[in-house]
Amino acid sequence: MLNVGVVGATGYTGLELVRLLLGHVDVNLTVVTSDAEQGKRIDSIFPALRNRCDLEFAAHDSPQLASCDFVFFATPHATSMSRIPALLDEGCRVIDLSADFRIKDAAVWQDWYGIEHACPERLDKAVYGLPELYREDIKSASLVANPGCYPTAVALGLLPALVNGLINSDNIIVDAKSGVSGAGRKAAVASLHAEVSESFKAYGVSGHRHLPEILQTLRAASDDSSLNLTFVPHLLPMNRGILATIYVESVKHGAGFQEAYVDFFKTEPFVDVLPAASHPETRVVRGTNQCQIAIHDNIKESRNIVIISTIDNLVKGAAGQAIQNMNLMAGFAETSGLSALGLVP
Amino acid sequence: MLNVGVVGATGYTGLELVRLLLGHVDVNLTVVTSDAEQGKRIDSIFPALRNRCDLEFAAHDSPQLASCDFVFFATPHATSMSRIPALLDEGCRVIDLSADFRIKDAAVWQDWYGIEHACPERLDKAVYGLPELYREDIKSASLVANPGCYPTAVALGLLPALVNGLINSDNIIVDAKSGVSGAGRKAAVASLHAEVSESFKAYGVSGHRHLPEILQTLRAASDDSSLNLTFVPHLLPMNRGILATIYVESVKHGAGFQEAYVDFFKTEPFVDVLPAASHPETRVVRGTNQCQIAIHDNIKESRNIVIISTIDNLVKGAAGQAIQNMNLMAGFAETSGLSALGLVP
Amino acid sequence: MLNVGVVGATGYTGLELVRLLLGHVDVNLTVVTSDAEQGKRIDSIFPALRNRCDLEFAAHDSPQLASCDFVFFATPHATSMSRIPALLDEGCRVIDLSADFRIKDAAVWQDWYGIEHACPERLDKAVYGLPELYREDIKSASLVANPGCYPTAVALGLLPALVNGLINSDNIIVDAKSGVSGAGRKAAVASLHAEVSESFKAYGVSGHRHLPEILQTLRAASDDSSLNLTFVPHLLPMNRGILATIYVESVKHGAGFQEAYVDFFKTEPFVDVLPAASHPETRVVRGTNQCQIAIHDNIKESRNIVIISTIDNLVKGAAGQAIQNMNLMAGFAETSGLSALGLVP
Amino acid sequence: MLNVGVVGATGYTGLELVRLLLGHVDVNLTVVTSDAEQGKRIDSIFPALRNRCDLEFAAHDSPQLASCDFVFFATPHATSMSRIPALLDEGCRVIDLSADFRIKDAAVWQDWYGIEHACPERLDKAVYGLPELYREDIKSASLVANPGCYPTAVALGLLPALVNGLINSDNIIVDAKSGVSGAGRKAAVASLHAEVSESFKAYGVSGHRHLPEILQTLRAASDDSSLNLTFVPHLLPMNRGILATIYVESVKHGAGFQEAYVDFFKTEPFVDVLPAASHPETRVVRGTNQCQIAIHDNIKESRNIVIISTIDNLVKGAAGQAIQNMNLMAGFAETSGLSALGLVP
Repeated sequence: MLNVGVVGATGYTGLELVRLLLGHVDVNLTVVTSDAEQGKRIDSIFPALRNRCDLEFAAHDSPQLASCDFVFFATPHATSMSRIPALLDEGCRVIDLSADFRIKDAAVWQDWYGIEHACPERLDKAVYGLPELYREDIKSASLVANPGCYPTAVALGLLPALVNGLINSDNIIVDAKSGVSGAGRKAAVASLHAEVSESFKAYGVSGHRHLPEILQTLRAASDDSSLNLTFVPHLLPMNRGILATIYVESVKHGAGFQEAYVDFFKTEPFVDVLPAASHPETRVVRGTNQCQIAIHDNIKESRNIVIISTIDNLVKGAAGQAIQNMNLMAGFAETSGLSALGLVP
Repeated sequence: MLNVGVVGATGYTGLELVRLLLGHVDVNLTVVTSDAEQGKRIDSIFPALRNRCDLEFAAHDSPQLASCDFVFFATPHATSMSRIPALLDEGCRVIDLSADFRIKDAAVWQDWYGIEHACPERLDKAVYGLPELYREDIKSASLVANPGCYPTAVALGLLPALVNGLINSDNIIVDAKSGVSGAGRKAAVASLHAEVSESFKAYGVSGHRHLPEILQTLRAASDDSSLNLTFVPHLLPMNRGILATIYVESVKHGAGFQEAYVDFFKTEPFVDVLPAASHPETRVVRGTNQCQIAIHDNIKESRNIVIISTIDNLVKGAAGQAIQNMNLMAGFAETSGLSALGLVP
Repeated sequence: MLNVGVVGATGYTGLELVRLLLGHVDVNLTVVTSDAEQGKRIDSIFPALRNRCDLEFAAHDSPQLASCDFVFFATPHATSMSRIPALLDEGCRVIDLSADFRIKDAAVWQDWYGIEHACPERLDKAVYGLPELYREDIKSASLVANPGCYPTAVALGLLPALVNGLINSDNIIVDAKSGVSGAGRKAAVASLHAEVSESFKAYGVSGHRHLPEILQTLRAASDDSSLNLTFVPHLLPMNRGILATIYVESVKHGAGFQEAYVDFFKTEPFVDVLPAASHPETRVVRGTNQCQIAIHDNIKESRNIVIISTIDNLVKGAAGQAIQNMNLMAGFAETSGLSALGLVP
Repeated sequence: MLNVGVVGATGYTGLELVRLLLGHVDVNLTVVTSDAEQGKRIDSIFPALRNRCDLEFAAHDSPQLASCDFVFFATPHATSMSRIPALLDEGCRVIDLSADFRIKDAAVWQDWYGIEHACPERLDKAVYGLPELYREDIKSASLVANPGCYPTAVALGLLPALVNGLINSDNIIVDAKSGVSGAGRKAAVASLHAEVSESFKAYGVSGHRHLPEILQTLRAASDDSSLNLTFVPHLLPMNRGILATIYVESVKHGAGFQEAYVDFFKTEPFVDVLPAASHPETRVVRGTNQCQIAIHDNIKESRNIVIISTIDNLVKGAAGQAIQNMNLMAGFAETSGLSALGLVP
């Protein structure tokens, strides 16, 4: 049994970590932190945890964290980077769900996040926690930078095509849509039910922070620094789910896409390539660590290939992938604690 | 006062026509038809009409229709084409909200709708009811083919760029999203609340019937038969609203888009070009005949221009545009009956 | 043309006032205030108002307000009571949509709102703005206390039964449900989409501030100080609409309820008694000033009568009723600016 | 390992049974039936089951059912009563989630369901599957009539008060609200997203089929045939969840309610009495077999006690309770397969 802690357990990502960790037979959740709710029992804030977890929220800098085998950070960006080094030095292994260690180049990070990076010397050692790409590195990592939600959906949707050289990489278009839980559990007018429901919009069109992360992953995987991508995120009137619709031009008239995708992911426990021309739905993966992908390579009047990739932003896009990474790091079965079926409807 | 009738007044489009016609000071709604509800009072089915409309549903082939100045068809496709000729011969002017007279080429129509066209000889005389493109022709038309919802949003989003030659027209990408009222008020498992809410998906990716309509309009307007477009529709977990995110490549490094759009629509009462880099929301146009458009011509790391166009699919995408067409045909003020502000939230 | 101003025009109630006032032919909206958005154009915050209103937000204490014929307060409680007296002294007529002048007894107000009333001497002169009960007093009032949303739905649902002595008044039960716009447009975790959607709960069961207002109205109307009522509000996963399900015991075995209700409201423009045993829906009155009421007086196995009353909380429950009051005060037609049909769906 | 079958596996209840049975370590799902989808793989209809279940739908009268240890019926009413006897005769144990064997009195059943009962001779032997009331009988039953969703929420909410004689039983009021999945997965205009979302209404006020079931349970448990109850169901704009707000009069001025409830359910694994004056939320129990109950015994100005009871209508209100019953019948741990935490949000 490993002892684990969650820093920032009152947000949607932190709460999802708690849900999954409580269902994981090989770990013992020993610390949850929240500065705002410090001293309160977690099940008084989240009554779904009644009779399942009686922890009290500790402060974010609780010394108990140092006694954990694994510490998860589910904090806003620019928070974990100043706290993680000390925990690593104490021998903890850390999975950071924030953006702080995802970008390898501190200057790029500063450009997009607007402040200087507090710990640039650790950027190199942090492993980007996308198991489908970096599984072996993750196993031995001390610090895993857990991918963003959009970057997970987009990378999984594009890797087979890029790695197999099936597409022109200089003008990929990604039209992505996310449920509102992606905006977090902070009080904000823009996330109110009366603002979000029965409406739809794009946001951050001129530049979203997940773009440099997507570019870094895809350029590295395809060894193609000229890869270019237009990324437009949208806000869906629902809570959970991301769906990315990806438009690419085939270099070989579309041949072989379906086969390449099936082959690329054939041993992956959490990526499911649907039959060609399927229409994945976000609700099908809700609450699960699955990514479902569909290829459309025969569209009337169009020479483009359309790839659709969908995940639950809080699971494969955050907490579930973090558990998957922990499983790899700890030598557990990769699917441990991640096999519950989702709810439909 | 004109006498008007609505054929198919129990669907969402028909009901929206009734709502707008009852608020129009220059018309008198005299006939509403429904085969299924024949003989029942319309306000017994739609209690929002209590004390406002006491008509009984007549049969679809009611002889009363012939005494109307204007008849609107809000029927499923392949219905109006066999009924409209007789009404035209009686001297009625007809606005057809179905797809039957939108496509000029009967062979193309047959290819996409799967049956032979019943009235190919009238296709030429039918005017495509997009006022921003065919206003003068509409004024004198006897038969107006009211545009589809997606085609309206997409055409308005692309016309200024195409007419001014600002973009490469051989690979336009349109990622479109619609509320579920677009699927109509028919009993179908796929449109149930428990199937649609808290979910999102693409549909009809391999080919949607609105594609040939979009291509016809854009190719004609730009006099460019090689124009090509990939169109992927998606289903939003909400009732009303369409938003199309359009990706184009500029031929002039993006210069002049905002100005061209503002100029193109400067006298249009129902098209509103937002300040550059805005994020239109479907709820802002809900219940109104407005189309809001925004241009993003300065996207980080991207050489594409993104154009966002949003309408209410039941208003500017159907019933509202039909009223706008009637206003033009009858010589009324174009905005008559169409100036109510929408509800937010 | 009257000049009118709205204090607090960035909340949902204030915005709804603006929507309705812009559509009212006899008034000229000249001032909108917001301390937070002072100096910004209202249509930059609410793009639905583009091309319809170019006012800039003034400060809440703008001297322009004094030049208005009518000033509407759409502010949180404990705000208007210190500002209204000065405006009244300047000759403005005021319609206060907050709770400050609704309760006649300052001690009761203090008990429920937790602070001392700033202007107890005006409580007597303020007229409670429920036209169905106080129409004549409203016409000549300088200060109208616009009723709360729940109190409007509940009072209209009970008045005919009470005034006609049809029910036992010592144990009325009101199970009320409201959309989330009732909680206002303030940043609060409890009103987030991800907290509200796909969920339902009661709130404020031990005592809600609308209870003393309901009791005051019903006790006065029935001249029965022993009237007692249990009121439980619930939060619906939707934006607009209130529905109250009211359980009463008949003193005459249910006879005559339907007739009494029809008769009581027969000249009311905004109260519609549905056929007996109907099931009103909130969406039918959405965006309108209508109250729809249904009587169930023949329920299997039950000796209770069930009365269902539904309104749009932002219209008949707030801004619409305020306009109705202004119409009465100004001598306009009572329905002026309030006759638009609602959207369905 | 027991072999189990599900008759009617394409509805929401049947699908939920499949979800839970696939996650149950002691059973082997061997048959799923659907007349409409016969021959298709279940994961082609429900892609959430991909890689988890490769069964094909058999016909409803498949002979494979006879080889099951347990057969669940998730069929519309008036279906199972003609099929279950043969399976019982073959030695299967049956859990019927339909209404066919819930009512002990065939005449009452006929009165509410409108047709003659096909198998009145088995009504006596069928055990009503509410474990909190009939646990011992369930263990040895061959045929369990699984309770309805509303009856489960209402019975659990009232049993402690009735059994302990705390309330007047002659005028209980139950205001109940359900998500739309309760209406099933059949194509019906009234269940469309565009009809249900952003709206709320009561239905079946004059008499709902769950009323006789509720009365039978409560009268039997309290040995009080004069118990009377007014039951009004409402439709919530969401998918899952039931919340019942119950109004009762205390015979002892409210003393002891909280303690009585805590004591009554203290050994129950699936009933959780919240701290006094809590506000349960449907989302907290979504996807779980939990019932959360709260007591409000100190309401301002009211002499009533309010009891709030909430469940997931598809789990504790249907499939989860059926699994709980199977666990009891098979001698498994009662919570087996039912301990997953729900999703929030």
